[in-house]
Amino acid sequence: MRKTATDSSDKSQLQDTQAQQDERGVHIDKVGVRGMQFPIQVPQSDGNTLGTVANVGLFVDLPKEVRGTHMSRFVEIMKDQTDGLDTTKITEILKQLQQKLHARTAHLEIEFPFFITKKAPVSGIESPMDYKVRYVASAIDDEIDIITSVAAHVTTLCPCSKAISQYGAHNQRGEVTLQVRSRSAVTLEELISVMEKSASSELYALLKRPDEKAVTERAYENPVFVEDLVRNVAVRLRDLTQITWYQVEAENFESIHSHNAYACVQSG
Amino acid sequence: MRKTATDSSDKSQLQDTQAQQDERGVHIDKVGVRGMQFPIQVPQSDGNTLGTVANVGLFVDLPKEVRGTHMSRFVEIMKDQTDGLDTTKITEILKQLQQKLHARTAHLEIEFPFFITKKAPVSGIESPMDYKVRYVASAIDDEIDIITSVAAHVTTLCPCSKAISQYGAHNQRGEVTLQVRSRSAVTLEELISVMEKSASSELYALLKRPDEKAVTERAYENPVFVEDLVRNVAVRLRDLTQITWYQVEAENFESIHSHNAYACVQSG
Amino acid sequence: MRKTATDSSDKSQLQDTQAQQDERGVHIDKVGVRGMQFPIQVPQSDGNTLGTVANVGLFVDLPKEVRGTHMSRFVEIMKDQTDGLDTTKITEILKQLQQKLHARTAHLEIEFPFFITKKAPVSGIESPMDYKVRYVASAIDDEIDIITSVAAHVTTLCPCSKAISQYGAHNQRGEVTLQVRSRSAVTLEELISVMEKSASSELYALLKRPDEKAVTERAYENPVFVEDLVRNVAVRLRDLTQITWYQVEAENFESIHSHNAYACVQSG
Amino acid sequence: MRKTATDSSDKSQLQDTQAQQDERGVHIDKVGVRGMQFPIQVPQSDGNTLGTVANVGLFVDLPKEVRGTHMSRFVEIMKDQTDGLDTTKITEILKQLQQKLHARTAHLEIEFPFFITKKAPVSGIESPMDYKVRYVASAIDDEIDIITSVAAHVTTLCPCSKAISQYGAHNQRGEVTLQVRSRSAVTLEELISVMEKSASSELYALLKRPDEKAVTERAYENPVFVEDLVRNVAVRLRDLTQITWYQVEAENFESIHSHNAYACVQSG
Repeated sequence: MRKTATDSSDKSQLQDTQAQQDERGVHIDKVGVRGMQFPIQVPQSDGNTLGTVANVGLFVDLPKEVRGTHMSRFVEIMKDQTDGLDTTKITEILKQLQQKLHARTAHLEIEFPFFITKKAPVSGIESPMDYKVRYVASAIDDEIDIITSVAAHVTTLCPCSKAISQYGAHNQRGEVTLQVRSRSAVTLEELISVMEKSASSELYALLKRPDEKAVTERAYENPVFVEDLVRNVAVRLRDLTQITWYQVEAENFESIHSHNAYACVQSG
Repeated sequence: MRKTATDSSDKSQLQDTQAQQDERGVHIDKVGVRGMQFPIQVPQSDGNTLGTVANVGLFVDLPKEVRGTHMSRFVEIMKDQTDGLDTTKITEILKQLQQKLHARTAHLEIEFPFFITKKAPVSGIESPMDYKVRYVASAIDDEIDIITSVAAHVTTLCPCSKAISQYGAHNQRGEVTLQVRSRSAVTLEELISVMEKSASSELYALLKRPDEKAVTERAYENPVFVEDLVRNVAVRLRDLTQITWYQVEAENFESIHSHNAYACVQSG
Repeated sequence: MRKTATDSSDKSQLQDTQAQQDERGVHIDKVGVRGMQFPIQVPQSDGNTLGTVANVGLFVDLPKEVRGTHMSRFVEIMKDQTDGLDTTKITEILKQLQQKLHARTAHLEIEFPFFITKKAPVSGIESPMDYKVRYVASAIDDEIDIITSVAAHVTTLCPCSKAISQYGAHNQRGEVTLQVRSRSAVTLEELISVMEKSASSELYALLKRPDEKAVTERAYENPVFVEDLVRNVAVRLRDLTQITWYQVEAENFESIHSHNAYACVQSG
Repeated sequence: MRKTATDSSDKSQLQDTQAQQDERGVHIDKVGVRGMQFPIQVPQSDGNTLGTVANVGLFVDLPKEVRGTHMSRFVEIMKDQTDGLDTTKITEILKQLQQKLHARTAHLEIEFPFFITKKAPVSGIESPMDYKVRYVASAIDDEIDIITSVAAHVTTLCPCSKAISQYGAHNQRGEVTLQVRSRSAVTLEELISVMEKSASSELYALLKRPDEKAVTERAYENPVFVEDLVRNVAVRLRDLTQITWYQVEAENFESIHSHNAYACVQSG
């Protein structure tokens, strides 16, 4: 059936379909928006500010009696919180989600490229090294939970290959991802340092020939399995006593296989 | 220091570096291989077999006393289990992982494109429709846990846009992902049917003009928010009593935004 | 054979392996680095500056007599050119590549997310809309060639579906990608405007209910096939007389299929 | 304005909007469908058949007088050509596109995972190794052009790192992509062999410890820059005289950087 003119006038009142009563009896755990791109400003440990681009997801729960949430409010909340994005700002976003969407729980996922200026080990030349930072946070009533996640590329050199071969040892780019909960602030730079020290070598954007020699030899002197890598991180985290929970994953893009080696350790 | 000739002869014995004692005291939750590609054969409900390509991850736990696992065994186990891949075969793979890696727990992730031959709604022309199937399974001692996951593309038409607009309504491709645990067999085709009936319309690879008219009108007659979509799935799953747990997610690639709407419901 | 101590002392001179003579007689068209991440500053038409993150590739040709190029120089050149990145800066990067790598030709690929602050059509609320910008440029001796590419998400509503259906019409998110060469400056904002006016409707990050009504009705009033979309762009480009070459592509993420509709037009 | 009942009856005739006259004067170079998934059967050199899954794009040109093409016909043509997919079948698809869409030119892009069963170098254990195959083909009137493309993962070990370091040498997974036109048949297996012999070592899905020793040492004995890799392929291709054109690209996922090294050579 076609709509009639009466429908049309009803429509001009812009009815709130989302506010309708729902009879299906299904509470929704998470509803909201995903894949939003936002230019953001992120504080760095050296006091500077990094302009970067975030991929953002924001969600709330929805009681079983209500048909829909109001999607535009998620975007309104986020667009005013893009400067100085840190864990304090994340707490603020979660509280606004709860208030403006009248929700008991709120959830947030923010991911962005992050950079540290590094000095090459011998030449000392500076270049920006890239990392992937991700916050996954939620508020249940007054309780805030924030997981900070950083992924770093590293070199891993295989201890078995080194032990059994007359010369050489297969090595490769690996990715380490560290997720933490902490009772007080831990900087992204501290987490990155823990991961990089746990590999055969850290990476650099810019290496001159004496640097390449140093990095090659350092990796050969420090062979690590993917298992060693996650254990080294776990051991180093014992010193960061403000951390109350962690998960560390490592994935090696094996140079002798087209598949990857993977390991994961969770605290407790 | 360079290696000496003595090292070299040691190496010819091909020492088992992985079997070394580990002193760090860190139990590893999961270690293994990821991103393996395998051609596999999958049974279909109609008795036919589908040749497809799987992305495979296999993992075990590793006691804190042992330095490394034996990566090649994971590949050896998988390469002999690629025919007739179903939940029975998955249980077999998990048990072999436990045995051959001397592990208490084993984990598996297998993802592959799956196809159903569909008839267009008016013309009846047949074409293959694609889905994404994923098994995530684990064995802890004798206890096997298998989650079957299927993702389907669907049409969603916005109830709000329809209600407030003089004509038309924004609609878009959406993706629904249903994960289930079940006490007895549930076919991929049954899960797909639940998801497709819960949307504004199901999709087809091939539609002639009378089919396109039917699908357009059906979608306009059945507007669903992303919230409605996951609730419709939840309600329909009440009839599949063999299912003991589920999670359903929907993501709409909004035609009026460059971000997506998302909703998630978990049973219980 | 193992290396001897003599090798070791040779190595301490850090020989320039790349500078070796090559006997294979194969000229290399492009060699360099790819997948570099850099935080950059990009000028906007309103006089502001956007902090964003670029994915960068830099290449030169290599004469058949020389074994290798010097990869670290590519990174050194780029790291000092990240502020005010525009076509003038791109020309400067290409010239430095030619000089510092002693190359006849140089090539550059830079891609980054770009944002324009948009007002919603009825409420006037502002929000940042995201685009994908890409420069592909090369220098052959003194001749510089720069292709500016912008990709925008838009709404497309199917004219056939509208014409044959009693009500409604399938519509979806589409992506338009416009590549141009121009004899004088054309802003990213001008190119984006051409694409957005050529679709059924442009997109917004933030729409309130009256905006959603306006956008829905506008799309229904302006149905476009993927063919119409690229032709509309082509016709509009006739007015931008500084453009000497273009290619426009459109891809619709069809809401009634799980595959996409695609069209492409090149000038001349 | 709302549609009236008269529109509705017009619609029941299912007018052919695509067949409308177009006044904009813009010839469309390529229009069609993209991102179609199809289960296909591919012949292997050993006489066996591989079941795999293809991502398919099919396009034709469209004269400036006609508004739209008929998208469903592209799908109809492809769904009947999924068995025994080779260059003969590709020619058949192109001709059907020209005929059934009344087009002067037709274009095709088909990409799928391909597998070869390999023996490990010492243990001789067999395992399937994965490759990415892609056909890009076009017909202009009676002239058929087919480009066969294969991508293989390989090991590359850096000659500079080996030369300057006391021990070890950075190595990594690389990807080589070879595109060829040939006057007579060249098998996928022949192209893969050319690429794998040109690297520091080929890869395997399954290596036991003696195999890993062999592969590690082989790579150390055969260091190649990304430049060496593409040149080695170019030199080897001189023997395959049926090849009339080629392009070879190599990309190393550098183990000491988070960016990649890249080189490209085109014939002639």
